[in-house]
Amino acid sequence: MQAAVIGGGVIGGGWVARFLLMGHDVNVYDPDPESQRKLEAVIANAKRSLPGLYEHSLPRAGQLKFCTSLPEAVQSADWITEAVPERLELKQAVFSEIQSACRSDAVIASSTSGFRPSELQADAVRPEQIIVAHPFNPVYLIPLVELVGDQSVLQGAAKVLEHIGMLPLIVRKEIDAHIADRLLEAVWREGLWLINDDVATTQEIDDAIRYGFGLRWAQMGLFETYRIAGGEAGMAHFIEQFGPALQWPWTKLMDVPELTEELVQKIADQSDQQSGRYSIRELEKIRDDNLVAMMRALKGQNWGAGELLNKVDLALAEAPVASQQSLPITIKRVIPSDWSDYNGHMNDSRYGDVFSVAADQMMKLVGADESYIESGKSYFTLDLQISFLQECHAGDEVEVQSKIQDAQGKKLWLEHQLTSNDGSLLATATQLLIHVDLELRRSSEPDVVIAQKLSQLQTWHNNLDFDGGRDQ
Amino acid sequence: MQAAVIGGGVIGGGWVARFLLMGHDVNVYDPDPESQRKLEAVIANAKRSLPGLYEHSLPRAGQLKFCTSLPEAVQSADWITEAVPERLELKQAVFSEIQSACRSDAVIASSTSGFRPSELQADAVRPEQIIVAHPFNPVYLIPLVELVGDQSVLQGAAKVLEHIGMLPLIVRKEIDAHIADRLLEAVWREGLWLINDDVATTQEIDDAIRYGFGLRWAQMGLFETYRIAGGEAGMAHFIEQFGPALQWPWTKLMDVPELTEELVQKIADQSDQQSGRYSIRELEKIRDDNLVAMMRALKGQNWGAGELLNKVDLALAEAPVASQQSLPITIKRVIPSDWSDYNGHMNDSRYGDVFSVAADQMMKLVGADESYIESGKSYFTLDLQISFLQECHAGDEVEVQSKIQDAQGKKLWLEHQLTSNDGSLLATATQLLIHVDLELRRSSEPDVVIAQKLSQLQTWHNNLDFDGGRDQ
Repeated sequence: MQAAVIGGGVIGGGWVARFLLMGHDVNVYDPDPESQRKLEAVIANAKRSLPGLYEHSLPRAGQLKFCTSLPEAVQSADWITEAVPERLELKQAVFSEIQSACRSDAVIASSTSGFRPSELQADAVRPEQIIVAHPFNPVYLIPLVELVGDQSVLQGAAKVLEHIGMLPLIVRKEIDAHIADRLLEAVWREGLWLINDDVATTQEIDDAIRYGFGLRWAQMGLFETYRIAGGEAGMAHFIEQFGPALQWPWTKLMDVPELTEELVQKIADQSDQQSGRYSIRELEKIRDDNLVAMMRALKGQNWGAGELLNKVDLALAEAPVASQQSLPITIKRVIPSDWSDYNGHMNDSRYGDVFSVAADQMMKLVGADESYIESGKSYFTLDLQISFLQECHAGDEVEVQSKIQDAQGKKLWLEHQLTSNDGSLLATATQLLIHVDLELRRSSEPDVVIAQKLSQLQTWHNNLDFDGGRDQ
Repeated sequence: MQAAVIGGGVIGGGWVARFLLMGHDVNVYDPDPESQRKLEAVIANAKRSLPGLYEHSLPRAGQLKFCTSLPEAVQSADWITEAVPERLELKQAVFSEIQSACRSDAVIASSTSGFRPSELQADAVRPEQIIVAHPFNPVYLIPLVELVGDQSVLQGAAKVLEHIGMLPLIVRKEIDAHIADRLLEAVWREGLWLINDDVATTQEIDDAIRYGFGLRWAQMGLFETYRIAGGEAGMAHFIEQFGPALQWPWTKLMDVPELTEELVQKIADQSDQQSGRYSIRELEKIRDDNLVAMMRALKGQNWGAGELLNKVDLALAEAPVASQQSLPITIKRVIPSDWSDYNGHMNDSRYGDVFSVAADQMMKLVGADESYIESGKSYFTLDLQISFLQECHAGDEVEVQSKIQDAQGKKLWLEHQLTSNDGSLLATATQLLIHVDLELRRSSEPDVVIAQKLSQLQTWHNNLDFDGGRDQ
């Protein structure tokens, strides 16, 4: 698929990075002479955070091309993202230029946070070709994208977006600001009042969110959280309890604060006080590392944004191959940012993580997979010995080859080698596993088909060596 | 400290659980005959999630006492939490009864989400004794608590709340609904409109939050997130860009939707559709496991709610003791819920985590601590061998004893034993570490003081055995 992005700012750059890293070629057009430098900064951020979200390597990155004209960028594109400033006339002019150069079956997706498709489409030669695909900063990490427009176009657009790891939310009725920004706008207005009236500072408002309901919302949102609060009596009961507060004069939202120079300066000063010790670049890195760590945490729970990551992993996974020619590759992945420690490298405990997953993959290869575990049988590790040969770092692409050294009855001996894609041998491991009955929690004989598969692989593997890597 | 909690519902129960698990005795009074059963369910939830948030064992849990009258519950208490239903006359009556029985130097803290202290204090004999300490569900996990009232009382109250792991946010001006619920109320109203107008369902709104800005808010809140969006141009520039939208008619918040029976039923039906396949108990467990995993992820980044957990850890940590009488205890902690795997026990890779931290603790004991690492020297693991003897599970309290087996020049051999507090020997490990120069990333000799400390401990440890545990 060929993508084109018109406008290379923070949002356009985030789109570019996501398309590229998920394996698609991207043409970019932005008349700003600074755009290449800005875009490369966003792509660098994406490279250090996105690949480690997954337990498998991403496809080979696409090619990035800076185009010198808009028609050159869009003419052969399947997908065209518009990410120019939020001015309706400007956007309409850009669509007109795009439509006179692009294919009629291409999707033209506006990143607008506020305008409705019908406004964007006004005067367009092929109105239905233009849809809203509204993402959230940082686009290369946050999964949500709101889709609004012609339903027949949206179905195909949703598939494209799912393919680059996003969650397309199809908005059924066009309204100003779609769904998410309506909610954001409400909080923003209330926040402005709190600052205007000296009730709270930017720091205090942020603390009220990130130590409080922000933690709930990141995994369940508003309604599911309140469903729990309602308890066994249910959601209708909860609303009836909460309902009367709607009539209380808590909010000042009936009114809009005037953005005087004084209020703007007050907010800017408070924000400096709160976060001024970090540069924007540092804050971006902190934010991205936090998001990666939290989304990976949700992955372990298979919930929300983590469930989505797991689905992409399923699509990325190349099952290890049983072969007489070479030992199976059980892992091929990028070291995520949250595996670093105070020594500035991957923490020693994470080598164990990697070999634990490699063993899981070998188990799948011999048929001791999820359904086997559901049938009440599995393998437990009895002994693990790791030799640490080389440091490795967040962002490194690594690979594990695994070997069945021996398999006798309940016992199974594996060997693993972890190598970096620059050829360094990072670590080796030997592992003794035992077959168990999960109900009795005691050792037991594996099923015959498993034993046979193990025996066959053992014979093959005894004649094979690791591809190796340089031990330094 | 003696705490008393009046009202044993979801909020009162959360307070009780947090006080108990952080080591304080709690008296409870609630006339509801069902309250003991409800309270025990909340405490059970707290026990399975809270202790694992920390890398050290909590102090011994306090004693819970169900009292048959309010005066009995409060008379000797230092801290009295009011968590009765949100009706002003009821709360005022409860305060009157509390004040006629309690000590005059006790803190009386209302959990109210809406009322101002001045409303609660009306007609009270000692008004300043009554403050607002507004927590968030689940109280045993969410750190935020809003404090409003007499500033001299709030300072002492904040210390008590910090001591039980919370983030007290002192609200400087009393307003209806404090700070957080003002923001929540704004989103709730906007959410009701979106459902009322059939723009979005409860599921779609929750997805817009948890796949989108909820992830940003959980770690940075609103203003720090926008500070980044503003880029190098700064916060004032961002507001000027965003500002004009305030004048647009995006929000419907100038109006309040009427909670007709039809709208309530619509929301309840959508919520059933979204989450009805889980019981409330299941949702609570899912939520708590998600919160534990995300907050522990933020801990690794030392940010927001995670930074707060790390501070409590510092207070909980008992530094391992160098002694001629017994081997040092390097870890004493509870297995967190996010360490479980598909086999229903602690994943094998987490044993490596535990021994990695045990080695860090030994390093601190010999003086190779944070400042030593900052000076450019550290120890790296070269080899690790783990024998897995017993399964362990989320919630188990475990302990590691560590031994210096040998120390020669750059090389250091450690042994570790992981035991459960029921006396089972869970795993043993032997570990070879090497001293490195962090700048050259090469092996080097440790500082003389470190070498001397190692040599002394090695002599002691060679005469000592592990306290052991039953190997089963």
